Amino acid sequence: MTAVLTEQELTGYFESLSNWQRWGPDDTLGTLNHITPEKRKSAAASIVLGRAVSCAKAITTGPQVNDVEGVAPQRYMLLSGEGLDGSTGPRGVGFAEYLGFVFHGVRITHLDALAHESWDGQLYNGVPAAAVTTQAGATRHDVVSARQGVFTRAVLVDIARFRGVPWLEPGEAVTRREVEDFLAATGTVIGPGDGLLLRTGYPALVAERGPVDQQSVGRAGWHASCLPLFYENDIAFIASDTAQDARPSEYETVRNPIHLVGLVAMGLWLVDNCDFEDLSAHCAELGTQAFAMTFAPIPFSGATGSPVNPLALF
Amino acid sequence: MTAVLTEQELTGYFESLSNWQRWGPDDTLGTLNHITPEKRKSAAASIVLGRAVSCAKAITTGPQVNDVEGVAPQRYMLLSGEGLDGSTGPRGVGFAEYLGFVFHGVRITHLDALAHESWDGQLYNGVPAAAVTTQAGATRHDVVSARQGVFTRAVLVDIARFRGVPWLEPGEAVTRREVEDFLAATGTVIGPGDGLLLRTGYPALVAERGPVDQQSVGRAGWHASCLPLFYENDIAFIASDTAQDARPSEYETVRNPIHLVGLVAMGLWLVDNCDFEDLSAHCAELGTQAFAMTFAPIPFSGATGSPVNPLALF
Amino acid sequence: MTAVLTEQELTGYFESLSNWQRWGPDDTLGTLNHITPEKRKSAAASIVLGRAVSCAKAITTGPQVNDVEGVAPQRYMLLSGEGLDGSTGPRGVGFAEYLGFVFHGVRITHLDALAHESWDGQLYNGVPAAAVTTQAGATRHDVVSARQGVFTRAVLVDIARFRGVPWLEPGEAVTRREVEDFLAATGTVIGPGDGLLLRTGYPALVAERGPVDQQSVGRAGWHASCLPLFYENDIAFIASDTAQDARPSEYETVRNPIHLVGLVAMGLWLVDNCDFEDLSAHCAELGTQAFAMTFAPIPFSGATGSPVNPLALF
Amino acid sequence: MTAVLTEQELTGYFESLSNWQRWGPDDTLGTLNHITPEKRKSAAASIVLGRAVSCAKAITTGPQVNDVEGVAPQRYMLLSGEGLDGSTGPRGVGFAEYLGFVFHGVRITHLDALAHESWDGQLYNGVPAAAVTTQAGATRHDVVSARQGVFTRAVLVDIARFRGVPWLEPGEAVTRREVEDFLAATGTVIGPGDGLLLRTGYPALVAERGPVDQQSVGRAGWHASCLPLFYENDIAFIASDTAQDARPSEYETVRNPIHLVGLVAMGLWLVDNCDFEDLSAHCAELGTQAFAMTFAPIPFSGATGSPVNPLALF
Repeated sequence: MTAVLTEQELTGYFESLSNWQRWGPDDTLGTLNHITPEKRKSAAASIVLGRAVSCAKAITTGPQVNDVEGVAPQRYMLLSGEGLDGSTGPRGVGFAEYLGFVFHGVRITHLDALAHESWDGQLYNGVPAAAVTTQAGATRHDVVSARQGVFTRAVLVDIARFRGVPWLEPGEAVTRREVEDFLAATGTVIGPGDGLLLRTGYPALVAERGPVDQQSVGRAGWHASCLPLFYENDIAFIASDTAQDARPSEYETVRNPIHLVGLVAMGLWLVDNCDFEDLSAHCAELGTQAFAMTFAPIPFSGATGSPVNPLALF
Repeated sequence: MTAVLTEQELTGYFESLSNWQRWGPDDTLGTLNHITPEKRKSAAASIVLGRAVSCAKAITTGPQVNDVEGVAPQRYMLLSGEGLDGSTGPRGVGFAEYLGFVFHGVRITHLDALAHESWDGQLYNGVPAAAVTTQAGATRHDVVSARQGVFTRAVLVDIARFRGVPWLEPGEAVTRREVEDFLAATGTVIGPGDGLLLRTGYPALVAERGPVDQQSVGRAGWHASCLPLFYENDIAFIASDTAQDARPSEYETVRNPIHLVGLVAMGLWLVDNCDFEDLSAHCAELGTQAFAMTFAPIPFSGATGSPVNPLALF
Repeated sequence: MTAVLTEQELTGYFESLSNWQRWGPDDTLGTLNHITPEKRKSAAASIVLGRAVSCAKAITTGPQVNDVEGVAPQRYMLLSGEGLDGSTGPRGVGFAEYLGFVFHGVRITHLDALAHESWDGQLYNGVPAAAVTTQAGATRHDVVSARQGVFTRAVLVDIARFRGVPWLEPGEAVTRREVEDFLAATGTVIGPGDGLLLRTGYPALVAERGPVDQQSVGRAGWHASCLPLFYENDIAFIASDTAQDARPSEYETVRNPIHLVGLVAMGLWLVDNCDFEDLSAHCAELGTQAFAMTFAPIPFSGATGSPVNPLALF
Repeated sequence: MTAVLTEQELTGYFESLSNWQRWGPDDTLGTLNHITPEKRKSAAASIVLGRAVSCAKAITTGPQVNDVEGVAPQRYMLLSGEGLDGSTGPRGVGFAEYLGFVFHGVRITHLDALAHESWDGQLYNGVPAAAVTTQAGATRHDVVSARQGVFTRAVLVDIARFRGVPWLEPGEAVTRREVEDFLAATGTVIGPGDGLLLRTGYPALVAERGPVDQQSVGRAGWHASCLPLFYENDIAFIASDTAQDARPSEYETVRNPIHLVGLVAMGLWLVDNCDFEDLSAHCAELGTQAFAMTFAPIPFSGATGSPVNPLALF
């Protein structure tokens, strides 16, 4: 079988799909530049039913197989209501907690900031990787760059439904050709400023089999051949119900092509680990793959991303 | 001086402003029930310029005077770019961090879930406060109840601008009368499903004087007399650039009336510690106090709230 | 087979082995009262070779099967030396980290404070369990009670060596009879103020098989029948290379008899999850099971225990 | 006034007081090599009263002025006893917590490992500073090197008592000459393998005035001229009730001479932030400044130190 894309071709994407300098030497928005006021207006105009659908997974505590360094999300109460029955003590009592987590990885729905990946010692737009320091975090290209958030048109590329399966198996990659076939079959047009959302059905797989060990077993996701599609269509962000890149990787050097070419060369913002099960049902019911989508990162200075809860609006 | 509202009258609000059972015994949405599909549609229709304005403060590390238990937000890198110059090692290197924080308090822009406060041993809708456990967190009324997020009309009650001051001084309370005067003067009508946002100008105060010790000095905020206004108008959520309740409190028992009556009796969702400085400028420029607003919590199971980044959309 | 000890007999230990009131109503030392100045002097006199042997396991990051809530020990650098080659920047650069962990469980060598367990709503000496609060931790019987540390005689009960096996299998319990047989066979006498250390060889098992899932597979440890032995001999503390109690438990109600009767009724201090492999070799070489032992908790206010690094001194 | 020690002379200490290669190219013990079995034996022989005195400060939560990045020690309960009265639920209930802290700084009694400081890009014995990585921590010279702990003779250099003051004021430095005067006046001889403990009385100062902001106000401590004294006498470790180095620093480049020359050149282990108030009283009562001392680090892999609780034994 002939490879869809050789590693050499892929490496060439760092040049051919580059957005460096496109929006000036100090740009920190990358592909979010594609979301114009006109784009927001037309996204708003598409909201005709008044429906909102969350695309975030609930965050739970307790271990999962892919936890980074074995650290599951932490929630520790500072005060609890145990023993309170209203008969003694102050009448008004409040509750609060400490939360701690590593949002990167495959568990939490999150936005990757442009500082999340480097290639040959550089971040997007040629910023030295050394700008990501231990003490201060990402001193450039942190998630605060996206603080004005996203409100734009998005398209659900529902490959699981397209193939007629509940989910793609770990390791299955979705190529550009298949995305284009899907768009053609559904009569969906994509264009500048759009978000592209990939549904592999992974949450349904987890519901049946439990979380998959992605190091040993792999995951479904975009194939590297989709990168030119994103570039040519001025896509503003992509999202997936996995962590974007199909695994195991076909490539030795560019192991996470969507992350590496996307973030570093294109300045493309990624939303990992969404849940598109409900969204898929809404799209099927309404006979459309397009809608408005909005989300905004928690603007944590120096952070290389943020948990988010993307809302699809119909 | 005659009190605007006696403590006895205030305590009566737990009955007179109660929404318990209004949406059934199992309701967990509270005032978010006021946001209907129709409301979302009309909010979308109001977006005519395609502008998005963030209302969240950036989260920074380093101590501040009001940190809960002296724990400032924590950001610890798992990997850094220091020493990476592209000449050695793997070509693609990613960065990630651990984040930890107590979002409640006065530092982080956040949404309070209905489990955040109890009165006489009960949460909203009569749920026992003991449902908030040390081990499992808020087993009822956690922030996941609001996972479908908010997309609705909101109104900026810009009292600092109304008074012609850069900010309200700590301790100043904004009464119902003043809110109504503001609405009348600006020709703004409020109604079911709206969000009401209070601008005291606190971020401008901090920019000049640094953070205020709210235990000893106090803060500006809503006066308890605003509660019936929220109730009578079916307000869906309120927000403030402080933590809602003016301090020091006039009341001995109901020390945080907006929090206690709002969350427990009304099921009213609160967004604390916003930054409305940019939003105020946009409103002034456009000659309006109304716009669409959207945000969605990080759906952390068991949590009594979530950091959020509310977007105003014009 | 006749049970060594029925559940009813075991439950009776809460009375018959109780040290409540033995050292007064305000006592917080429990069995550490057995360590007198005379005892320390004679322990010091036993140190004739000048050898020190650590009995703590190294703490590592990364997941293990038994991590409480999936939270492995956390070590996050505040500063790192990457990229420092002495050619630029300040000449003197320091490094530091944040450490976080749940020391209870089966991973970290630690001392259990008397607040670690309750029975029928009470801690040692009849203190209400409600003294352990979410906000303030253990307001009584925290580990600070033991801040003056331990320096006393200890005896290694080396059952793995006694049985001629590298380790006891998960689930195997060491009864009082076997301990007494061991003491007789090795000519070892025990007495007031001694520490008793159980070697099951678990670290050797882990070295070969990896960590054992103690919920599903179990662990070796003391049998409940040892409790009267500890009591009658005025043992000051016990230690084990597991978490003391053999599992699965024979008992329905008193599932962790060593922990429950030991901590709550006797006020007996426990050191869990030691590594006695080196110590065993030293004892074998020297032909003795007795030596001096010292350790002292990190005096964290409100904590129900502390990581420790016990030293055996010959 | 003539400086006791010029910066040039001080910088020369990195050569003249170096222990690099003294114990071979792979040495990780540094000055702990001075603690021989003979030394331990004689320390044990000095224990004639059977008294143990803790020299650690209790760790508390809540903010203090010097907290690193505003992060006070964290203690979060996983389970609490609130609401437990023995009447319902399981009879045996256990309690546990998460602990998190930055032990470096001026708050927690702790041992500095040899990886804590670098000079010109190198750690002790010429190890590259780059061995301290963000991901893995101190891959060399971590605190695990000292896992066999310390048991040796120590001498309290009680300068506060010597001067007849309750405490030294922030900024006051204790020179070699004063240490020698103290030793002569008390008839105390020091020698190989000893620990030297400096009492400035800082805990007494804190008890009266509260914690001092050490960045702006300074602290008492050893003067750099003490370094040759440590070196010539083969001191095994030093300790102080402050963080060793007097501040503000007299020196521009070698700002923390005790830390930098001590850790990097000498391989000298440091115990910061002890409490010697009780110890001082015992020494005064007994008319001696010498005793045995023992402590052992929590062997956290990759850590640049550890909280410790040193015990003085008489």
